[in-house]
Amino acid sequence: MLLKLLLFVGVFCAGIAGRAQNKIVVYQSDFGVKDGAVSEMKGVAMGVSTELKLFDLTHEIPAYDIWAAAYRLQQTVPYWPAGTVFVSVVDPGVGTERKSVVLKTKTGQFIVTPDNGTLTLIAESLGIAEIREINEAVNRRQDSKKSYTFHGRDVYSFTAARLAAGVISFEQVGPLLAKQEVVSIPYQKAELKGGVLSGTIPVLDVQYGNVWTNIPGELYQQLHVGFGDIIRVRILHLGKEVYSGEMPYTSTFGAVPVGKPLAYLNSLLQLSFALNQGDFAAVNKISSGGEWQVEVRKK
Amino acid sequence: MLLKLLLFVGVFCAGIAGRAQNKIVVYQSDFGVKDGAVSEMKGVAMGVSTELKLFDLTHEIPAYDIWAAAYRLQQTVPYWPAGTVFVSVVDPGVGTERKSVVLKTKTGQFIVTPDNGTLTLIAESLGIAEIREINEAVNRRQDSKKSYTFHGRDVYSFTAARLAAGVISFEQVGPLLAKQEVVSIPYQKAELKGGVLSGTIPVLDVQYGNVWTNIPGELYQQLHVGFGDIIRVRILHLGKEVYSGEMPYTSTFGAVPVGKPLAYLNSLLQLSFALNQGDFAAVNKISSGGEWQVEVRKK
Amino acid sequence: MLLKLLLFVGVFCAGIAGRAQNKIVVYQSDFGVKDGAVSEMKGVAMGVSTELKLFDLTHEIPAYDIWAAAYRLQQTVPYWPAGTVFVSVVDPGVGTERKSVVLKTKTGQFIVTPDNGTLTLIAESLGIAEIREINEAVNRRQDSKKSYTFHGRDVYSFTAARLAAGVISFEQVGPLLAKQEVVSIPYQKAELKGGVLSGTIPVLDVQYGNVWTNIPGELYQQLHVGFGDIIRVRILHLGKEVYSGEMPYTSTFGAVPVGKPLAYLNSLLQLSFALNQGDFAAVNKISSGGEWQVEVRKK
Repeated sequence: MLLKLLLFVGVFCAGIAGRAQNKIVVYQSDFGVKDGAVSEMKGVAMGVSTELKLFDLTHEIPAYDIWAAAYRLQQTVPYWPAGTVFVSVVDPGVGTERKSVVLKTKTGQFIVTPDNGTLTLIAESLGIAEIREINEAVNRRQDSKKSYTFHGRDVYSFTAARLAAGVISFEQVGPLLAKQEVVSIPYQKAELKGGVLSGTIPVLDVQYGNVWTNIPGELYQQLHVGFGDIIRVRILHLGKEVYSGEMPYTSTFGAVPVGKPLAYLNSLLQLSFALNQGDFAAVNKISSGGEWQVEVRKK
Repeated sequence: MLLKLLLFVGVFCAGIAGRAQNKIVVYQSDFGVKDGAVSEMKGVAMGVSTELKLFDLTHEIPAYDIWAAAYRLQQTVPYWPAGTVFVSVVDPGVGTERKSVVLKTKTGQFIVTPDNGTLTLIAESLGIAEIREINEAVNRRQDSKKSYTFHGRDVYSFTAARLAAGVISFEQVGPLLAKQEVVSIPYQKAELKGGVLSGTIPVLDVQYGNVWTNIPGELYQQLHVGFGDIIRVRILHLGKEVYSGEMPYTSTFGAVPVGKPLAYLNSLLQLSFALNQGDFAAVNKISSGGEWQVEVRKK
Repeated sequence: MLLKLLLFVGVFCAGIAGRAQNKIVVYQSDFGVKDGAVSEMKGVAMGVSTELKLFDLTHEIPAYDIWAAAYRLQQTVPYWPAGTVFVSVVDPGVGTERKSVVLKTKTGQFIVTPDNGTLTLIAESLGIAEIREINEAVNRRQDSKKSYTFHGRDVYSFTAARLAAGVISFEQVGPLLAKQEVVSIPYQKAELKGGVLSGTIPVLDVQYGNVWTNIPGELYQQLHVGFGDIIRVRILHLGKEVYSGEMPYTSTFGAVPVGKPLAYLNSLLQLSFALNQGDFAAVNKISSGGEWQVEVRKK
């Protein structure tokens, strides 16, 4: 009897503490933090369960920049534990035909988002375990039927909170997509062909204006370029050349004079271009996104 | 005996888990997040109870803009559960005669703030259950008597934390105000006269440049405008026309071409104007505040 | 027997609730919040323990500004409870010889940081209980050996999370520094000589443009200035006068007309200058740093 009681009490306490799930929701959007939108989303989540732990990835995604949203997810999701639920709301097509979905990665994180390209990169890098369409008939905040424009709060945050808190299972989000695919933004994958490395510019190192490519160090090494060797770099936007030049591959920015270009491997071990104490992107009018192409060859 | 024990243990565990209160504090200010002020407020709250859950509404209220603070509270408070304690510190009159108060809304949220107009809109929209003046003789952080300028930390955050954590009851905040009224900022209310809707622009949707009016959906519907119908919009600053144009009333931004204007009901169900994937306010040089007037009629 | 059971259950519940440690981590950096860096750090911490409570001091420290990092720590650490773990990553010398350390203050807070000057002020104001060098052989995230440049995530946040969660003790951080000293940035201390108070401007109150000095209230009181008394203020940059004027010492901004100057003690109880509802620094073109000098005398 005492043992049973003990067991009961133990289960009771464990239930209260709710250890079985991590109850974490991480938010990303292009809303900024000057108004109340992010707070509204979090308030709705707290209304679902006050035990949730809510975090921000960033709310400074440039307005409507789906590619940037995709990149930030790829950059950060792998560092969060399995079971974490991400909400990403960069949604220029709000109210149109894009589906509202929840992707479960093969490493166990969930992403709640409009399926508008936001999942392009994370689906590739972490893989799709399952992708479900949100059934808004049940997964929508009550009394929100008259509100046409804030799916972020009434559908995405609400569904993410209920999933993270264990109010609904992943299956209860809605039906599996018939095709287990995400809407993808086309972009140049890194490849080496006939002595030419091709890739894209997924993002700028905005603080310094360095240009980061999606060409990994392993692939780059197949060009057999050593420190001090010169490479030829072309950068194109929608097929039109924006930059063409030569620069050394170096282990330190100081290896070239101030204002001169160099190539290096960034902290993600991807090929990158910089000006020593300058802003490569601004000087050469280069931005980032799938429509940018990079070509590199050894001189 | 076992039953008593069980009961005792249950109560004990429940006490530990602290379910009876939501222990949430939400902060708003015009402090920005570049210095340590917000962190000081939160540190003091954690010193009261490490079980509190602390959130931010925004700290980017324009300096001294009490109206904006009032607007953001009205926008977000309704989405947080009953029992949530808000701290709003936009306080150009710090140290002067304005009272420090805690308002309990009729829906059960608390707002801790100087009574300087910050409560104008929330008192109207959610209603006043009770309003009490903070008794600073007891509700003030110890060792803070020499500090003249940071009421946000030493009085507001400290009192909010103690209230949210259940260290003090609402009654222990201090005495009821003799008049159960807040200090109110006068503003032009929305009205429909002779087929013309008039109102003001209380705030911009700053991230996107959408123009929000104070014209509620219920009043707008009395114009009998359906989706796809065209309305005529005039916007005036101090009586001088700044914008005049026609646009459809739509249920989705995507219903008009990119860059074209539309009218819609925002997440607060108020009539608003936008450019699809554009910045209506910047393009048309429109700002917000009581000196702005909006006129809308059906075409 | 029942008593023993009760005791056991009590301990069990207390263990679950984890009262013994505050499990708080507070982050500071110069990363900004536009990319995923801060989120990566927090994700790693949540991977250590989902019971941690994560906060931000600020991520808007100007790039590489170690002095500003030092100042913000001094400003805020005292307001957080003993046991709180701070992570400060402003690290222009990443990859060079600076040590990675954890300082325990005499008031019981921990600071995890490169020892590059960041600890200059906090070591003076709160005192050094112990300072240990992080043993990266054990206190480094697994699978992080290929990443050369994100110590903030792989060493600092990882170590802070394990310390805050009680996974490691302070001793397990690594060995005591042979010299229990921090790397210090030299700066001009406040002094009173011949009726003239001298000091520097360590930081601006950036949100409002108030000028903060490093002259403590205790020293200022030796000028015997009461509320309403007038003081003469000179501000010099590299020895050249930038501002000269008179203003009253007041207990409230509202004691002078809008736009007029006043002197007050800020929340750190240091002498400061402001314009009532104005921007003293911008109007008078004043900035902060060691090359700025302040002189104050009683009129």
